[in-house]
Amino acid sequence: MNAEIIAVGSEMLAGDRLDTNSLYLTAELNKLGVEVVFKCVVGDDRDRLAAQVRESLGRSPILILSGGLGPTEDDVTRDAVAKALGRTLHFDEGIAEWLKQRFAAAKRTMAEVNKRQAYVIEGAQILANHRGTAPGQWVEEAGAVAVLLPGPPHELKAMFQSECLPRLEKLVPKQAIRALFWRVAGMGESDLDQLIAPVYKKYTNPVTTILAAAGDIQIHLRARCATEAEADSLLAEVAAPIAELLGDRIYSRNGDPLEVVVGELLHAAGATVSVAESATGGMLGERFTTAPGSSRYFLGGFITYSDAIKAKLLGVSPETLAEHGAVSRETAIAMAEGARRLTGSTYALSITGAAGPEPGTDTVPKGTMYIGLADAEGSLALHRQFLGDRQYARGFAVQTALDVLRRRLTGRS
Amino acid sequence: MNAEIIAVGSEMLAGDRLDTNSLYLTAELNKLGVEVVFKCVVGDDRDRLAAQVRESLGRSPILILSGGLGPTEDDVTRDAVAKALGRTLHFDEGIAEWLKQRFAAAKRTMAEVNKRQAYVIEGAQILANHRGTAPGQWVEEAGAVAVLLPGPPHELKAMFQSECLPRLEKLVPKQAIRALFWRVAGMGESDLDQLIAPVYKKYTNPVTTILAAAGDIQIHLRARCATEAEADSLLAEVAAPIAELLGDRIYSRNGDPLEVVVGELLHAAGATVSVAESATGGMLGERFTTAPGSSRYFLGGFITYSDAIKAKLLGVSPETLAEHGAVSRETAIAMAEGARRLTGSTYALSITGAAGPEPGTDTVPKGTMYIGLADAEGSLALHRQFLGDRQYARGFAVQTALDVLRRRLTGRS
Repeated sequence: MNAEIIAVGSEMLAGDRLDTNSLYLTAELNKLGVEVVFKCVVGDDRDRLAAQVRESLGRSPILILSGGLGPTEDDVTRDAVAKALGRTLHFDEGIAEWLKQRFAAAKRTMAEVNKRQAYVIEGAQILANHRGTAPGQWVEEAGAVAVLLPGPPHELKAMFQSECLPRLEKLVPKQAIRALFWRVAGMGESDLDQLIAPVYKKYTNPVTTILAAAGDIQIHLRARCATEAEADSLLAEVAAPIAELLGDRIYSRNGDPLEVVVGELLHAAGATVSVAESATGGMLGERFTTAPGSSRYFLGGFITYSDAIKAKLLGVSPETLAEHGAVSRETAIAMAEGARRLTGSTYALSITGAAGPEPGTDTVPKGTMYIGLADAEGSLALHRQFLGDRQYARGFAVQTALDVLRRRLTGRS
Repeated sequence: MNAEIIAVGSEMLAGDRLDTNSLYLTAELNKLGVEVVFKCVVGDDRDRLAAQVRESLGRSPILILSGGLGPTEDDVTRDAVAKALGRTLHFDEGIAEWLKQRFAAAKRTMAEVNKRQAYVIEGAQILANHRGTAPGQWVEEAGAVAVLLPGPPHELKAMFQSECLPRLEKLVPKQAIRALFWRVAGMGESDLDQLIAPVYKKYTNPVTTILAAAGDIQIHLRARCATEAEADSLLAEVAAPIAELLGDRIYSRNGDPLEVVVGELLHAAGATVSVAESATGGMLGERFTTAPGSSRYFLGGFITYSDAIKAKLLGVSPETLAEHGAVSRETAIAMAEGARRLTGSTYALSITGAAGPEPGTDTVPKGTMYIGLADAEGSLALHRQFLGDRQYARGFAVQTALDVLRRRLTGRS
């Protein structure tokens, strides 16, 4: 079953404000098995809003509007929905009396303008507002429903829980929803899609969504069925072959980011890690320490941006730098070994590269990165060539370094 | 003149993700005097998107779409706009070749699926993408224009600046718009607003917008008049008293971020800097090295997360750590002095603190941060108590460290 959401208010069309009510409403609707297929922000314009209400109700059986129920001329939602449905508004004495008493209880006089909030769309059910002065409305029309909710989030949430949910539960066919959320490291988006599309394209249920950031891809699968058992089995049918194709490139099956996954592996192994960063300038250390509790396994490390500092702090030999250059497999390994020796950590990771925007050289073009790992068993370094700008290449290198350590900790490299 | 914005992507219809590109686009359009009257999110559904494109182009002369230009089946924007306008798509050999070369330059093979990105709507102008693989498109139809931009924010912003703005400026009726963009360090948002609101609240033109992040506040003033002279004089009338109230807390008058301002001061002075980071774990180094060309003044430094590593790498004395603790003025100073001594930098900055989420202790509550600075004249350390979560406290501490160095470099501390 589909739903749409309209946020009403010109202030949400400015450059510094977003409609966040729709996030709450979407999460609640999804729990019922209802999918949000469209959402929009309309300014305080009665005709434009009425047109959108007609459009949305014409294609989706549930429409939720937030905002525009206040007492001023700018508050156009009641008028616009009535217009869209070709219905009249009537003055509700009960609401007017309730409003008057509410103001009296607060020892305030009600402004005449507040009476606007007592107008109800012909045939609508009134949704009580226990947190403010704007009642909501529930209007059914030709198998669809428009729900008018107040804009202030605490009023909207309270009204949704006590007044809307019970009504929606009666409306929506019972459905079971089961979802998977995996994260994958070490692949580009198009490579991953090419690999797994032949599996998931065969299904419209479960729905598959793929989101990509530098070196980090999220795969969401969501199955909707009549029973939980059916949903589970449908999900497994798609998830199993995807899992087989991706193998150990899946680093998280609960949504945890890579620094948390690696941190837990380190902690479980009673191991520690240190870093030696050139091109990323501290970004890898920053990632490790984003996770609360990282002091259990992260010791620290070195930011060695210049060649002289690589030699002085980490003991990278001038010969290595002269012969192979600062951006090389040999320097990456010397950096990791230096960090491990000086901190006494179980593992050490290093990153050296040319992030750009300078174009680099023939042997070291922009986007070249070497990622080093040292431990008691020895050292290794990976070479990667990244596309994209400076921040993208740096972010992807950090993600790769974390993944190299994950593989080492799980016995895969 | 009115505009509408459509964000394309099913992932932005989930309960945990908002379209933020529209904020950037709105701010840019507003600068041109263009008002955004409607915005929406449409999932990866070709027919629904085509219907919305027809609707929007029917009532507003500017329509901007973001997202859905990637290489996968899910990327429906090209198809949907072509369908809405009743036009065909043609395969552009030039784009295909450019894509191939882009992959070749990175020594990677282009996946077949990437060729989808070479399809262009009949009659469309191609908008170059210097940050990614999805070209944009500019399609005019019956006095209106549809602009197709890529979804990743850094690609969208770069393309908007270089490809869209010049075209939009020709389209939009001339208004004289003069703007100021200042950045302020070292103040909270409410303190700043309390200080300058009595000035700017008196004016609706220029429009004043205040945007706040941790330790970094942006002040935008925009005057719109018939002539440039009028706009200039109106702007000066408001800007002068605000500048007087804020004084040297304004660190940038051209929008440059603090690490760029400090980097230019260091470079101009022929000076270098190193860092010693505990609670921020590399975040300060990462900030310095975000600026291209930072190798001219940034040498590197130390991430010393544990006490033992503070002693071992930086030479912080065990007595200092035992007597005053790792989160103390004394340790901050010893860390900065150690980094300076070991790297030979002109200046050294240090950060040590308790970022949370652990509540901390009575003497060192969560959010306590010490920021140290060492140079040839001696050392100092500042104490700050930040509110907010772990990332907020860390970000504010980094901003404070950069500002301490700015003040030292400009003779203010």
